[in-house]
Amino acid sequence: MKTPYFIIAILAIALCVVTGRLVATGSSNESAPESDAATGASPRSQAAAIYNNIMTRSSVRTYSDRPVSPEAVDSLCRAAMAAPTAMNKQPWQIVVIRDRATLDTIASRCPNIKMAAEAQVAFAICGDLSLAIEGDGQPYWIQDCSAATENLLLAAHGMGLGAVWCGIYPIQERVDLISSLLGLPENVVPLNIIPVGYPGAAVTPKEKFDPAKVHTDKY
Amino acid sequence: MKTPYFIIAILAIALCVVTGRLVATGSSNESAPESDAATGASPRSQAAAIYNNIMTRSSVRTYSDRPVSPEAVDSLCRAAMAAPTAMNKQPWQIVVIRDRATLDTIASRCPNIKMAAEAQVAFAICGDLSLAIEGDGQPYWIQDCSAATENLLLAAHGMGLGAVWCGIYPIQERVDLISSLLGLPENVVPLNIIPVGYPGAAVTPKEKFDPAKVHTDKY
Repeated sequence: MKTPYFIIAILAIALCVVTGRLVATGSSNESAPESDAATGASPRSQAAAIYNNIMTRSSVRTYSDRPVSPEAVDSLCRAAMAAPTAMNKQPWQIVVIRDRATLDTIASRCPNIKMAAEAQVAFAICGDLSLAIEGDGQPYWIQDCSAATENLLLAAHGMGLGAVWCGIYPIQERVDLISSLLGLPENVVPLNIIPVGYPGAAVTPKEKFDPAKVHTDKY
Repeated sequence: MKTPYFIIAILAIALCVVTGRLVATGSSNESAPESDAATGASPRSQAAAIYNNIMTRSSVRTYSDRPVSPEAVDSLCRAAMAAPTAMNKQPWQIVVIRDRATLDTIASRCPNIKMAAEAQVAFAICGDLSLAIEGDGQPYWIQDCSAATENLLLAAHGMGLGAVWCGIYPIQERVDLISSLLGLPENVVPLNIIPVGYPGAAVTPKEKFDPAKVHTDKY
């Protein structure tokens, strides 16, 4: 009767090795819904995801008709307002454009924003001069709002959304048109329009790194 | 002689359960160096890490003496140059300041960049007017270089580094000083100086979201 118990022992080992693999697989899947920050797991994986998101973001100009949720829009506004600003002035205002007629009017009247016709939503990131630094530092609102815009673009990409930065300021004709369409007061200047939607097609990021543009200590 | 084999079977099961747990633990640690994109695991965790990085980035003004590797500096330059630019002009140049004497001179002569004295490295993100759009669109270099700067700040934060955006352009006195210290040609305009190092102290991000600054369809 030695053999059956010997066989049981071997089978038990085999079973447990298989179980071990299932447990291992299950473990990495189960952690998915939680943030790695919360679990303390795989900080290198987190860092890679963050860096990869920056390196793979690309302008997305065609969108599917999949709706963009109000929660996603809220998250994008919060990401934009997390940007740094000169003297912490936070001199911005955001107009979230959901109205189909307004999106279509922007698309038809602004040659550089045709893609608004397909977008589920667009954001106008605006500078509020009444909140900006006074004097020589006033133009820092442009840099502040540009940082906010980049945050929004990166957050969108991280959420699986696509977006494109359509410049408005400082082209006066564009500023006047958008200000009129959105009913902006005189102190609020539209820096750009950012159409957003789920990508309608795969986009390959451009390779833009140029080592000749990196200088050490002196130009 | 039944008992010894029975005990072996039980011990084998116990051993394999423990092994299974070790395999499970090992598996999540071993996946750390790979990007989740490569493994296909935990996309929600990736998205959370990306969003969290944007929301928790904060200006870091004190640094430890831990060195910042050349690889990290290279990664930060690549992140900066992954930013979108108007008409894809990529009108930037980056001066990486490693020289201790230059960092100390910047710290002592620029009241808003005192932290350069502690920084392991600083980046001057510059606009190259010879690469910029001609005509009315020329000032888009400011927005392009601001987006590049925000990419650099977010990449630094994701890598565990701290950084702070010290504005130079358009304050002429600062532009002249930095241009002189870094030997910039006339067509290259320093937008900012970004001191970088491993944080010398914990920093709490500011709460900047203001729902009153979000407008729907019309201002």
